[in-house]
Formats: sequence, structure tokens, C-alpha cells
Amino acid sequence: MAVIRSVLWKNLNCYHVYGANTNVGKTIVSTAICRSLRRKFPDSKIWYLKPVSTGPLVEADDRHVGNFVTGIQADCLYQFNEPVSPHIAAKDSIDNAPLDSELLESIYSKLSQYADDAPGWALVETAGGVHSPGPSGTSQADLFRPLRLPTILVGDSNLGGISSSISAFESLHVRGYDTSLVLLFANDKYKNHEYLVEYFSKKNVTALSIPAPPEWRPDGGDRQRMAEYYNKLSESAAMEQALSVLKTKHDSRIDNLASMASRASNVIWYPFSQHTSVSASTITTIDSAYGDHFQTLTTPPENSQGPLLNSTFDGSASWWTQGLGHGNPELSLAASYAAGRFGHVMFAGAVHEPALTLAESLLANMRNSRLSRVFYSDNGSTGIEVAVKMALRASAVRNGWDTSVKDLEVIGLKGSYHGDTIGAMDCSEPSVYNKKVTWHSGRGYWFEYPTVQMANGTWTVEIPEALQPELGSSSQYASVNEIFNLSGRQSEPLAHRYRTYIKNVITKLVKDDKRKFGALILEPVVLGAGGMILVDPLFQKLLVDVVRESRDIFEPGRSHAPTNTDWTGLPVIFDEVFTGLYRLGRFSSASFIGAEPDISVHAKLLTGGLIPLCATLASESIFESFLSPEKSDALLHGHSYTAHAVGCTVAEASINSMLTMERNQVWDDFKAQWQDSTGPEIWSMWSRPFVEKLSHDPAVTGVIGLGSVLGITLKDSAGSGYTSSISQDLQSRLVQGKGREWNIHSRSLGNVIYLMSSLTSTKQNIREIEEFVGRAIR
Amino acid sequence: MAVIRSVLWKNLNCYHVYGANTNVGKTIVSTAICRSLRRKFPDSKIWYLKPVSTGPLVEADDRHVGNFVTGIQADCLYQFNEPVSPHIAAKDSIDNAPLDSELLESIYSKLSQYADDAPGWALVETAGGVHSPGPSGTSQADLFRPLRLPTILVGDSNLGGISSSISAFESLHVRGYDTSLVLLFANDKYKNHEYLVEYFSKKNVTALSIPAPPEWRPDGGDRQRMAEYYNKLSESAAMEQALSVLKTKHDSRIDNLASMASRASNVIWYPFSQHTSVSASTITTIDSAYGDHFQTLTTPPENSQGPLLNSTFDGSASWWTQGLGHGNPELSLAASYAAGRFGHVMFAGAVHEPALTLAESLLANMRNSRLSRVFYSDNGSTGIEVAVKMALRASAVRNGWDTSVKDLEVIGLKGSYHGDTIGAMDCSEPSVYNKKVTWHSGRGYWFEYPTVQMANGTWTVEIPEALQPELGSSSQYASVNEIFNLSGRQSEPLAHRYRTYIKNVITKLVKDDKRKFGALILEPVVLGAGGMILVDPLFQKLLVDVVRESRDIFEPGRSHAPTNTDWTGLPVIFDEVFTGLYRLGRFSSASFIGAEPDISVHAKLLTGGLIPLCATLASESIFESFLSPEKSDALLHGHSYTAHAVGCTVAEASINSMLTMERNQVWDDFKAQWQDSTGPEIWSMWSRPFVEKLSHDPAVTGVIGLGSVLGITLKDSAGSGYTSSISQDLQSRLVQGKGREWNIHSRSLGNVIYLMSSLTSTKQNIREIEEFVGRAIR
Repeated sequence: MAVIRSVLWKNLNCYHVYGANTNVGKTIVSTAICRSLRRKFPDSKIWYLKPVSTGPLVEADDRHVGNFVTGIQADCLYQFNEPVSPHIAAKDSIDNAPLDSELLESIYSKLSQYADDAPGWALVETAGGVHSPGPSGTSQADLFRPLRLPTILVGDSNLGGISSSISAFESLHVRGYDTSLVLLFANDKYKNHEYLVEYFSKKNVTALSIPAPPEWRPDGGDRQRMAEYYNKLSESAAMEQALSVLKTKHDSRIDNLASMASRASNVIWYPFSQHTSVSASTITTIDSAYGDHFQTLTTPPENSQGPLLNSTFDGSASWWTQGLGHGNPELSLAASYAAGRFGHVMFAGAVHEPALTLAESLLANMRNSRLSRVFYSDNGSTGIEVAVKMALRASAVRNGWDTSVKDLEVIGLKGSYHGDTIGAMDCSEPSVYNKKVTWHSGRGYWFEYPTVQMANGTWTVEIPEALQPELGSSSQYASVNEIFNLSGRQSEPLAHRYRTYIKNVITKLVKDDKRKFGALILEPVVLGAGGMILVDPLFQKLLVDVVRESRDIFEPGRSHAPTNTDWTGLPVIFDEVFTGLYRLGRFSSASFIGAEPDISVHAKLLTGGLIPLCATLASESIFESFLSPEKSDALLHGHSYTAHAVGCTVAEASINSMLTMERNQVWDDFKAQWQDSTGPEIWSMWSRPFVEKLSHDPAVTGVIGLGSVLGITLKDSAGSGYTSSISQDLQSRLVQGKGREWNIHSRSLGNVIYLMSSLTSTKQNIREIEEFVGRAIR
Repeated sequence: MAVIRSVLWKNLNCYHVYGANTNVGKTIVSTAICRSLRRKFPDSKIWYLKPVSTGPLVEADDRHVGNFVTGIQADCLYQFNEPVSPHIAAKDSIDNAPLDSELLESIYSKLSQYADDAPGWALVETAGGVHSPGPSGTSQADLFRPLRLPTILVGDSNLGGISSSISAFESLHVRGYDTSLVLLFANDKYKNHEYLVEYFSKKNVTALSIPAPPEWRPDGGDRQRMAEYYNKLSESAAMEQALSVLKTKHDSRIDNLASMASRASNVIWYPFSQHTSVSASTITTIDSAYGDHFQTLTTPPENSQGPLLNSTFDGSASWWTQGLGHGNPELSLAASYAAGRFGHVMFAGAVHEPALTLAESLLANMRNSRLSRVFYSDNGSTGIEVAVKMALRASAVRNGWDTSVKDLEVIGLKGSYHGDTIGAMDCSEPSVYNKKVTWHSGRGYWFEYPTVQMANGTWTVEIPEALQPELGSSSQYASVNEIFNLSGRQSEPLAHRYRTYIKNVITKLVKDDKRKFGALILEPVVLGAGGMILVDPLFQKLLVDVVRESRDIFEPGRSHAPTNTDWTGLPVIFDEVFTGLYRLGRFSSASFIGAEPDISVHAKLLTGGLIPLCATLASESIFESFLSPEKSDALLHGHSYTAHAVGCTVAEASINSMLTMERNQVWDDFKAQWQDSTGPEIWSMWSRPFVEKLSHDPAVTGVIGLGSVLGITLKDSAGSGYTSSISQDLQSRLVQGKGREWNIHSRSLGNVIYLMSSLTSTKQNIREIEEFVGRAIR
């Protein structure tokens, strides 16, 4: 299946004709437009396309248009005889209904043919109203969304037509369609046109009324009178204006797209970008996005009539946020519902349903007996600041230190990343990413750790130097499941060595070096920005265990016995911002390492990839550290939009979607190939044969595939890490695409290139990408 | 005018009946429901209300219902004879059309009467489709939104009715209505009911089909046959289920609302809240919000049938974010459009229309010749971190310091607040708010400064102790305009003294104390969290001027002459997060002090009060400090949702709304009373007489009114500042409301209580609040 592109050709002025209702005169309006185009542009080619037609052939819309506009090419792709909704007609027909994808491909292919013959104009007329079902039963507004043709909405001039016109407009609008023009028949009794012209002008949409046709039924009138009607209409000021609006919108859309990269290079300060390497030519212009794909502006070869938009696979899942597909109408409706019901409402001292429901839902689905409280903020970085404030205070209170103690540190892993605000940065080891940031200073100790990848077809744990003398440099496993079988691995010599090593280090840090620690902070399983590093889960598990057992080291003065949900040793923070919420295939990535954190941070996928929101979850034991009669002992942190209703509502909808997908076993096909009889359920949307094959590639050091994440470490003779440029070559090859029909946007971290799908990506899409990546990697 | 409350009584099971289109059978469905209620609850009271009816009286819907349901009370509030849309009928009628507010009041008042007579059921039937205009021309879906009655949607079983039913549902949904039930007639030809029942079940909305009536026109059928139809229907399983759904929804909504505060107290960790003072009884449950008001849960006195929802004025403008009214349909549609068109798309290396348009629009409207770049982040705090990273780096580069220099500081004002992430906190002086935060350490010098307020009817500049010897403790002005007339005041002795003082301090800090500074950071005009302190604008202006002139002090080694847009002395950061975007009555608060910052931070009102988004604007001179061949010299900062399309689209819509309001002189009434012949345009939505009167109140030390902000400093014998509890008493009085019909939510800062309106608040609403506050303050 080809990936569907949105429609845009320079020389093909192309519009979708949607109706506010059935029987509002879509075909008559289409005919009138085509007839007027014929008059105004006598040399121009004009096409009319009716993708799906129901009713007797003799009354078919394409025939009507053909009858009244000379030299027009009028096509119909699917014709059903019964005059009912296409989904009924298709069911009753002896022909099979086309799949949505087939229908879209047929339309795009037909329009491509027109474009090859351009310059000219094309109208694509829908059937019934905007949400009338297509042959498969999918509403047309949803079905045709990938094409995102600009729209002419034919308004309803009948009684009640004001309402149906506005509602139809809104249904298109919430799906990201641009309505270029509203046309409707004048009706002096109901005067809908007067109302709607004014209404739409306030929305910067031109609405125009035209005289009603002599007869309502296109087949019932006197043909001569219809011809006169069209003829007269084509001379009218209204039609003149209509054509002018359509032409201007088309041209200015293209001009605007063409100028955007250059304008952006003048006014935008890009995140994480050295602007000496940024120019108009390096900036991708995104016109829209749908499912897994951006629609990006492309420059067709000179003198070519080629399409201006490419489908580009969003291979970074838009910085790891994307989970349920771009332009997801469920999320769009959820966002607008909350906006309509609440806007944003003050959260301190108040509660609203979306915030409460989401909090309860997160706590329930984490299946962590410790976590009992939810603190909201706006993104992963602020959520980490909250988590660290919580943990450090809890430690200070427990140990009787002044709560403002300045030299408290965290324990973490080398290469960890937790965000870009200073408090979050301070949890990371100084590195090339942060070393020039004036107020940053790493406040902690960061462990070395064993890593996991598939190399040359074998799942391998690589041992860091500090641990090597006893263990050798690596250890091989039969499957990734075996590596995650932590209870089975507890008896390995590795486990014993890990444990001793950790214990020795923390003993030295605290007892010998007299350093004070207030938190253990980890990205569970995979270190994201650090380079998509899969950490040996056994090491993370034992790090948590040893820290918790080391009460004598971290909190020597404590007298009373801890309860089950009490933190011991250090508060344990899991930064699940990247790894949580099914990114790695499970609701919580903590479950992979079988440890329950005291504090857990969730963002990115939390809203399915729509808008920023973060939830920091904490245990009652942490929470209680802030209780006192003094207000100044409280967690005096808050953002204006804390627990904004739109974010919470979208998050609840997203989580429900994900849980439903799991319940409905949507990923079972992906899972099946990764399963074996022994291990726990470790799986990836990337196929096992593909990962294995990649791992044998001479250009590749190792590969990980986990959940929707694929990480490929490339061999680089010039050295690995941040300074490597080896991945840039591969990235440019991926962006070329096959015949530029579509291509892959990817991001790299040093010599690691990664790809990330949505949770809704199809198997077929993934396979095509795999094939393409397999070819491109050489 | 009374503030309209949303409808909810425990004993009145009350629903709005909306139609997917006109003529879909709303009245028949309403009658069927009432008839079934009569059968199932023979002792229950049943009311039917048709607020606006058009067409001959004999065919009126309320009569139809009355004819077929025994013992029902059927009312109509406004009757027009012509069978056209109410807005046409009203225009043609000799009677005046009711204002929207009058219509809402009539409905609420009628339902109140029913509720007094409850227990029972009430149906309120709309006219035409969801967006059919009411008598004033406002679409019903918008007009009736303040009541936010739960909705029964009557689906459309005609050809095209799938589309109109779904679109109607969506138009209600984006306005925050809850659709409790969809009912439609079965039609075996079009089978809409089959499609829609399945469609809505996926949205967790029950849709049910019932047999079509014997005749379509309620008046045209044989009365006996209609009666039999209703009778039979009332025994059907479908109606049984319909009633059960309605009853369950009503009861569970109330149960849910009643439990929310208690559940929240168990799972939510509130921002800026000492939880020892938080319990179910202190938490406000917000059911929805509209315009300036929350709809908050109230407990009616025991055994009372009183309403469960109160209108509560959002007097903190939801932590200073709110500007265009809660539940604003324009913002809701803007959000959903962007969600439908893009979702969120990766911003590093890419551009999309909303981000570019917003950047260009911000830069153009700031009218600051220096600002040329926009960096996006998620909230004020992250935007400040970005600003500070920019400024400190620029200073380090300029002065040839190692860019990671750790001891760089900022210059600011005492009591400033810039956010809660560590980097933003470090810009503030240590205080009770931040002193217990482990990793916080104020990194800067904070000036004392003169403040402005109206005291005893006179605008007064109060001089801080450090400046007093020469200037006395205060200085009086004829008007606030005079205080803001900075060019006029440049020749005052005050100006000279300010200048000398500032110069002396910075000379000592740098020359004697050898401290290094990297930025001047100010909240222009008003310090928000510091206590709604109006700083003498002349002082801020001179602080900027002196810092910029002091090149010899801050950047002694610099050789080349600065250009016009080059920063000199220190980069100047204006934190307009609170003060900008019309909060104080102007697009940019920098304009009040006539100084152009090098970096400017905007959030809160940026999205009109809907979702988090921040823009940090910077000059090219700052931007260039990060240019180098080294990636590590770039501003390596970014958040996953940087420049999220939903936020940027909503922000652009908000800014356009605000600019349009200014252009349309919407605030001229407010402005008029504040104007005098001499000064610049300083105005407030709070009335001048009210501010003056308050300033004479024996309980009050001083008042400020500027833009939508009203700040009242209360006399507190126990001392001012953070520890004061004097404002809590006033806050509780405000929350009581007049007869609990509505009340005022407010926030305080020590002994300062403040109120903040939207930019769309009406004069009348403001006046009512003023009256109420005037009474409550004693």
C-alpha cells in the first residue's frame, strides 16, 4: 500500500466539494463552478471527479456536470445503483466495496493524471453530508482526511440549514480541513444566506449566495432552463468572486508554503540547534500531518508538474511524543470538549473532573502499591524538578538536615537526561550538552552500568570496565526475554557482582567521601537522550534494591521500622517521561525491572502526542514530608496551567485508547514473533527478523528493538558519541525516500540513529520502513 | 442582570432536547419520553418547557405534549406565529425579541419554580437544529451554553441523517455539553439508526432507536393513532432503557460531584498548598466554567431543594491566565483545528504555519526594534530559564568569560518572582517562598524600589528607606497618568536621585565587591506574586537606562561601538508573563516604561487562558552570541512539545481577538473614566470611583487598578507580608456571595487581596462585583 499524500499541485487548482447536508445542491454548485471556470478560463482544463456515486446511472452527478459544461472531463470511480448511503449501497451491491485505502489511492492517482495534464482545475465531489459514510462505513470527513483537500462547503438553504451548515463546517474544522469557500442558494423565506454570509465572514471564510436553480432535482428540470440558469450564473458577480477566492487561496497557499522556511530562518530560534547550520534549505516545511506521517513541502524538479507535498514518516515520533497518530479526531474532540466545558480553571484549592479522573486512572494503572498522589505540571522537565524537590526534601526531613541544605546530591546513571531546566539538568552528569550552560552544575554521582543490545544476531550484555575484571567484557543470552527474566537471573554470578559493586560504591561515597544523597533517579530500562541505551535491567533492579537496603548508610539515625510503602535508603525516582505509557510496550516501564519507585514522572505520550502535560506521582511517605503547620514547609511549586482541563481530558482519552488497544490485543501480531516459552513479555513493533538482520550488518555495532523504539548503533571509525557524524549520512539517505514518494524523518544521537513508531502504526507500514532502512543502511 | 448559573437540582431530573436537524421529531421524542415517565413514575411531576416557539399556536409543541401526557405542565416562554427560524420570526414580530440574557434568566427562573415543586422531571426543547439561531440571532448551542443542561440529542433518520446527527453531536461536544442520550426513529431504508447506535456506543454515548410515529407531522395524524403510538412506545424496552440511562446519568453525576472533593483530597498533591490545611471541605468542586465564572458545587441547606451549582466569579483569572472567557468556542475550535490538522509536530529543524504566524505576529505587535527571534517553550518558568540562559551566555561571550562561568548573577528587584523551576527561582531573592527548596540559591542582587498606590484618594509614590533621606517618604501626584508621564517626570528631583542611587549601587557591586552580572531581569510595571506591587515606572525606566549606559562597569573590555539594537551594559530581560498581553491594558507592558528589552518572555494570557505555551523573544544581538561552528555553543534547550501547533494556533486566535477588541474600541467605556488631558493612556477595567472609594476605606492601606488588575492592600496590625492572614477573612466573605446566588473566588498574597477580570468582562459584571466587594470589605 502506498502511503497517501495530501493533495497539492501548483498547476492543478483542486477542491473538495462537501455538502452541509444531503440534497443541498452539491452537484449544481459544482456544475456552476465548472461552467463559470469554462467561461472565465476558456483554455483551461477542467476535471470533475465523483469518487463514489449512488443512484441510477442516468441521474449520476458526473453525467449532469458533463451535460452542462463543454469540454469537461467528468469521472466517477465507484458507482452503485441504489440511491442510499454508499455504505448501504456497497453492502447490497454485488461488487465489493473498496477499502478506504483503495479509494484514497484511486482518487490520488486520478488527480495525479489530471495534474500531469495541467494547468487546470479539478473538483472532487463527496456524497451526502460531511459525515455521510463512505463505502466502508467510515465517515467521509474521516475517510478523506489524509488527502486534506481544501474545501468548498455547499451550505443548506432549507429550514434548519443554518444549523446544519455551521455544524458541517465545524466537523470539517475539528479535523483540520481548510474551508476555502461556502456557497449556498439564496432563499428569501428562510434567509439562511444572510445569516451565514455574516457568520462565516467573522471566521474569515467567504460565504456567497447564488440564485437557486429552477428546479430542485437535477434530472427533473427542463434542460434548457437549467442551461440558461448555469449560463446566467456564470456571468454573475457572485461566481466571479467565488472563482477569485478559489484562485487566490490556492496561489497564496503555495506562496506561503514556499516562503515559510525562509521566513522561519529569520525569526525562529530553534531548540537544540546550532543556527550556523540552519538555513531555509535545511528547514522542513510541514503543511499538515496525519497518522504516522508529516505532509512536507517538496520542490518538484524544474519544469515538473510534480506534487508539492510528500508523505514523510515521523520517525522521531515528534520527539518521542507521538502515540496515537497525528490529526487523531478523538483527541481533537477531547481537547475541544474540555476547552468548551472549562477552558482552563484554577487548580490550587479546586478540583475538576478531568484532573481527578486522570489522577485516579494513572494511580490505578501504574499498579504500584507505593504511589498515591499526583502532582501536575506542564512537561517532563518541570515534572522532574517537582520530583527532585519532593525527594530531596523527604531525605532532608528524614535525616534531620536543614531542609535548605545546599549540598544534597542525587545518584543516577552516566549519560542520563532529565530535562533542560536547571534543576533537571543538575540531575545529569556534566557533558557536552550542558557544559556551557552557565548555571548548571551536576549535583550527583553517576554509575557506570552494563548495557544490552543485539550484536551479530545475539543478545549481549556488555560489561563496563569497572566491573570487567571478574566478569569479562560481555555476556550472551539466547533471547531478550531471557535478559528480562530477572528472577531467573538473580542467581547469576553477574547479579552477585553487580550487587557488591553497587554496595561498595555507595559505601565509599557516603562513608569515605562524606557526600550526602537525597535521591536515586533513573530512566527505567532505556536511557533516551543518552543514546537509546538499553541498560541491563538486572543492574537497575539491583541498584534500587541495594539503595533501599542501605538504610544504615543513607539514613543511619532512623529509629522506627518502615512500612511496606515507606521509602528506605533514598527516595527512588523513575523518570518514565520517555519510557512510560507503552513507549516500550507496557503501561509502566517500571514493570520491566520489577521495582516500585517512590516517585514517578510521566509526560510525552501522556497526551497521546498532542499537548504538553506532566504528572509526577508520589508515595504517601514522600507526601507526608511536606506536612506541617507551616505553609513554608509545603511544596511551594506550581505552574499557572497546572492540571489544565484540556491536557487532562486528552490524557485520559489517550490512556483509555492505549488500554483499549492492549485489551483488544491490537499488538498481538507484533508480540507473537517476539515471544518464547520462558521469558516475560518483551516485544517490539519492529520485527524480530529485521532486528536480527540489522545486527549482522557490517555498518552496525548493535541494535535494540523494544516497544515502538528501534535504536541502531552505527560503526564509526572516527569514534562514537556526540561528535560522530556517521548517522547524518544515513539520515540523508532516509530522507530521500523511494522515488521521493515518501521518506523518513529521523533523529540521531551521536552514532546512534533511532526510529520510533506510533502505537497505531500498521504492520505493513512498519515492514515497508524496515525494507527501506535495510536498503539505505549500506 | 443576574449571573446565569448552570442547571442542577438533585430532585429535578432535567434535560435539554436538541435536534440533529429541524423536523427530526424533537417534540415527538419529548412527548414519548414524558409519556413513558408518566407510566413509569405515575406520581412524579413532569414539566415540559419550550423556551421559544415559532409557528401557529394551535400547532405549538407544548400543546402537543400537553395533549398526550396527562398531568404534565407544558410551558412556552416566547411564542412567534411565523413558522420560520426564531431570529426571523422575532424580527418580523411586533414583540421585541428577548435578549439572550433575558431568555436565559426566564428559563432558569422557570426551572427554579419546577425545582421548588420537585421531585420530578423536566425537558427543555430547543427549536430547529443545534445551531439554529435563537431570537437574538445567537446560535442556540452558544446561547444556552451557560445553562449547560445535559442533552438528549434527537438523531436524524432521513437520508443524510447520519451526517447531520454526528455533526450536531460534535457542535455540542466542542462547546462542552454532555450528550446523555441519542434517540432517533428507526428507518429501514436508510438504516441510520443501525449506524448511529454503533457509532455512539464507541463514544460511550447510548443511542437508541424507537419506531417512527404513524405520521410525520404532529398535527396531521389521527389523534387516536398518535395516542396509541405513544402508549405502545411507553411500554417498549427502548424507552425503558432510555429512562434508565437518563436517571442513572443524573444520579451518578450528582454522586460523582459530591464525592470529588473527598477523592481529590486523597489523591491530588496540590500546587502551592500546605496539605494540613487541605481537606474535602476546603476544596472547591468545579463542574464547568463559562465566561468569567466557575460553576461550583454547593451544598444546599438541609432538606432544601436548592440548586447544586453556584456561579463563582473567577477573581484570580485562574492564576492570571484567563483573558477571553472560559468555554470560549472560538478558542475551542482553534484548538481542535490545530489538533486535527497537525496534532503535535516536531519543531527542531521544521516549521509549521501556526508557529511561524505567531512568531511574526508577536514580533510585529511588540513594536520593539530590538526583538527579532522567537524561542518557544511550555510555560513562564521554562521561558525564563531560556531567557536567563540567553542573557548569561551573551554576557559571558561579550566579556570573554568562560561560558560555563558559575558565579554570574542577575540584577533584579526585591520580591520579584519568575517561576518555580530552579533556574527561574535562582533569579529571585531568597524568601519564605523558596528558602526551604534544597537546590535553590538566589544568584543576584535585588534593588529596593519606590512603589505606587492610591492611598486616601491620592496617587502616591512611596520611597524606600535607602532613598528616603533626600526624598522624604512619599510623593503625591494628581493622577496615575501623571505618574506614567515619564518624559515629564525626567526633570523631577526624584529622577535625579533614582539615577544616582542606581549608579552608586552597581558601581559598588562590580567595582568594590567584584561581583559579575549577566542580566537585568524585571517584571515591568507590576510585580505579581511579590504582592501586586506597582513599581514606580520611572524607577524601572531609569534602572534600564543606567544599566545600559554603564558599559564601563559591566563590559569594560568592549571595543566596538554598539548598533542601535545591540545590547549594552547588561542584556535586559522583561518578564511579561503576567503583565503582558493586555493584562495591564496594553499589548506589551514594556511600553508603559518606554524601554525596549533585549529579551522578553510571554505566557499566561498568550493562549487567552486555555493551555500552556511560552514565547521568549530575543534580539539578534543576543542570538548571535550562540552562533559558532560548534554545536555545543548552541542554545541546547528544548521541550518535546516546543511550539506545539495547538498552543500556537490558540495563541494566534487569542492575540487576534485582543487586537480586534482594541481596534473595535471595546474597552473605551472603561478607558473614558480614567482619561485626563495630559497623561498617557493608563486605564483599568475597575472603575475610578470604586478605586478611589476603596482607598479611603479605613480597612485599606492602598489600592491599585490597572488594566484588569485590582490590588487592595489591607491594613494588618499583625504586620504585612507573607505571614498576614487578614485577607483570609475578606476572602471568606467574598466567597459567601449575596444569598449564595453567586460568589467571588479570590487569591491573596499576604495582606494584599487582588481581583482580576477577563478582557471580555462586562461593565455591568464588574460594577456588581465592585458593589459586593465594597460591602464585604468592612
